[in-house]
Amino acid sequence: MVIKGDILFTKNKDDFEIYENGFLIIEDGKVKAVQQEYLGTEKIIDRTGNLILPTFVDLHLHANQYANCGLGNDEELLTWLEKYTYPEEVKFKDLTYAEEIYKEVLTKLWEAGSLRSVIYASLYKEASDLMFKLTIDSGLSAYVGKVNMDRNTPDFYIESTEDSINFSEELIKKYKDNELVKPIITPRFVPHCTVESMKGQGKLAKEYDVPVQSHMNESLAENAWVTQLHPEYKTSTEVFEKYGLFGSSSKTIMAHCIHNTKEELDLMKKRNFYPVHCPESNANLTSGIMDVKGMLEAGIPVSIGSDISGGHHIFMPNQIVLAIQLSKMKARMEDDLSRVLTLSEVFYMATKSGGSFFGETGSFEEGYSADFLVIDTRSIMAPRENRTPVERLEKFLYLGSQNNIIEKFLQGKKIDRPFKD
Amino acid sequence: MVIKGDILFTKNKDDFEIYENGFLIIEDGKVKAVQQEYLGTEKIIDRTGNLILPTFVDLHLHANQYANCGLGNDEELLTWLEKYTYPEEVKFKDLTYAEEIYKEVLTKLWEAGSLRSVIYASLYKEASDLMFKLTIDSGLSAYVGKVNMDRNTPDFYIESTEDSINFSEELIKKYKDNELVKPIITPRFVPHCTVESMKGQGKLAKEYDVPVQSHMNESLAENAWVTQLHPEYKTSTEVFEKYGLFGSSSKTIMAHCIHNTKEELDLMKKRNFYPVHCPESNANLTSGIMDVKGMLEAGIPVSIGSDISGGHHIFMPNQIVLAIQLSKMKARMEDDLSRVLTLSEVFYMATKSGGSFFGETGSFEEGYSADFLVIDTRSIMAPRENRTPVERLEKFLYLGSQNNIIEKFLQGKKIDRPFKD
Repeated sequence: MVIKGDILFTKNKDDFEIYENGFLIIEDGKVKAVQQEYLGTEKIIDRTGNLILPTFVDLHLHANQYANCGLGNDEELLTWLEKYTYPEEVKFKDLTYAEEIYKEVLTKLWEAGSLRSVIYASLYKEASDLMFKLTIDSGLSAYVGKVNMDRNTPDFYIESTEDSINFSEELIKKYKDNELVKPIITPRFVPHCTVESMKGQGKLAKEYDVPVQSHMNESLAENAWVTQLHPEYKTSTEVFEKYGLFGSSSKTIMAHCIHNTKEELDLMKKRNFYPVHCPESNANLTSGIMDVKGMLEAGIPVSIGSDISGGHHIFMPNQIVLAIQLSKMKARMEDDLSRVLTLSEVFYMATKSGGSFFGETGSFEEGYSADFLVIDTRSIMAPRENRTPVERLEKFLYLGSQNNIIEKFLQGKKIDRPFKD
Repeated sequence: MVIKGDILFTKNKDDFEIYENGFLIIEDGKVKAVQQEYLGTEKIIDRTGNLILPTFVDLHLHANQYANCGLGNDEELLTWLEKYTYPEEVKFKDLTYAEEIYKEVLTKLWEAGSLRSVIYASLYKEASDLMFKLTIDSGLSAYVGKVNMDRNTPDFYIESTEDSINFSEELIKKYKDNELVKPIITPRFVPHCTVESMKGQGKLAKEYDVPVQSHMNESLAENAWVTQLHPEYKTSTEVFEKYGLFGSSSKTIMAHCIHNTKEELDLMKKRNFYPVHCPESNANLTSGIMDVKGMLEAGIPVSIGSDISGGHHIFMPNQIVLAIQLSKMKARMEDDLSRVLTLSEVFYMATKSGGSFFGETGSFEEGYSADFLVIDTRSIMAPRENRTPVERLEKFLYLGSQNNIIEKFLQGKKIDRPFKD
């Protein structure tokens, strides 16, 4: 398979690789080469004039909060959870409702070109199981987590420690050998998991070599709560590390990581650890601004998450642009403009860096999964406007929408709108 | 004329007025009443299930920068002007090009429901004149400014002091009696206008009682430049005030107003002065975050501008949401969450506060111009989602787009897409 177009990707955070009128050559679902000329005999799929980009990778979202997108933005994290989030999540006992929402979320991910994502499904085993099935049906790739919570949540929304562990294990066994949709162990965050639960989840991570996701250092109130619950530890990092949930045995995603100590950053560097920046959520919930630049410079594979419904846009370019804007505001207030994130850095985060959680995805280097989008930018151009590929990429990220994505491919296979009927 | 729907507006910054299934009653293009029941005999235009909102008012944008939207976001203000802005603006010598872009901008304003706006047209008299004509043709309401620059700009993009004054006066005379489209005196900013020019513009403002618009206190580099050019003054405010361009004789808009001294704020309160917050532009250009809350509390009529192309979205809800987010980041960094802007405050800024520059517009109080939008939020609702009018407004602002605006009325008259042929 050979596609022609204006091909852009990032091998590293500092530079775009640019092939204007270039050729993306694909074999067995993987990138074989990107080159400026093609002398072979295969039929060329001609997308001249369009951008060819890696698909977006969304490393953090809550499928069961989808209906709350764009709501409750006058609240901070802990009150927001009580007032908006739990009452919505509890509805997923009803599998008919769960199915409607999950299908909508998967369709929105497809529309947005986020063909790989890491998802919080539900506290409930049945709803989580359904999310696995629907994700497999959709043709998208994802890690799906059954959310574990056995303390400090409302009475109407909690489960036993035993259920957390047993149901997690059940789903791990059921889906661990699926190629595109895989399980991920999901302690919600330290205040919502007992020590017994965390121990059990750490054991599962090790036993099945399954990755872990959670939240930490999102708000100062959360951090104060953690040390109140665990006075013997100074941070969530120490707690998670103690129970094998910090990337020691299997790779681990932690959303937010805003209010970190130096010790935590040092451990992040040593572990198989993927912090996720969620700019829209952090802005909406007044959480603060992550030091993304510092993470990038330290070589930590920081990426971007929509964090639906803390964030409200599934479309990753909205997150990309806000990540840049927030870094600018942080740099301005700290009076150090060298801390501003560049376009290539943030694009890299949303493609190759996030994609590395899935293996060789998110770039067009040889051997990488042929996951790509075809982008038609004509509708966002002014009359007579004529721009370079990188400028058109910038325009797409700042002004574009789902509608500019005209084709989506995963592993070299075109993915059509899921659940059409 | 009587319209039925879920009617929302803000009389003051702190509260929404809410009439679910209410009636907006219009006479002679003005609001006669908003009420929960209607017992009259007039035919009701039934928009049940839709939101009825005041139109948006965009108090600051550069029509001749439109093609640059979403570009050049790696630069700060002064380099951005040199590298991206002037080379684009100079193209407006070509009136054919100018016409294409201006029509596009007016169409985008219409699509976005910004039926009243305050526009920088062009340095050139002919292009500015064209913008007046096209705006009149569009059916929208605007103040249109010929931009005056007679120092410190590139050689290829400057005019004489005499031309600044004469051309401004010519356009004022030509359009001052138009009802919907009016002239506004437009010194670009202090560093671009000689003392002679500012004197002349101040004289015109007084003589014709025409309002003024400019920029100030946008970046620290700009402020340093101003005091270097005018060592006898401490701020742009003092310079503008000296030459009658700070709301002493006629109402004055100043975009940005981020880096203000206490003395400047004190004078703003005393003058007929409209500062405009441009959140997207301020974020993109790393300018800083305006103390909007302080302005609101001081009773200064602060409003919102898209500042195309410093900002990239004409659609005001993007600016509204970012204004809230930036206030949250500022509040977090200053550790004072009481400084967070609320939804009603920012909606008020984008409707009634900005609208007050045009007189009684931007609200549905008796006697106000019947400028309103009909919003269909169904496409942004999740399955089975059922929300109150204010929640649907919040969803529209956070998740919606131009496409959710299904009808637009100015002075009680439906405005159709301009320049259709």
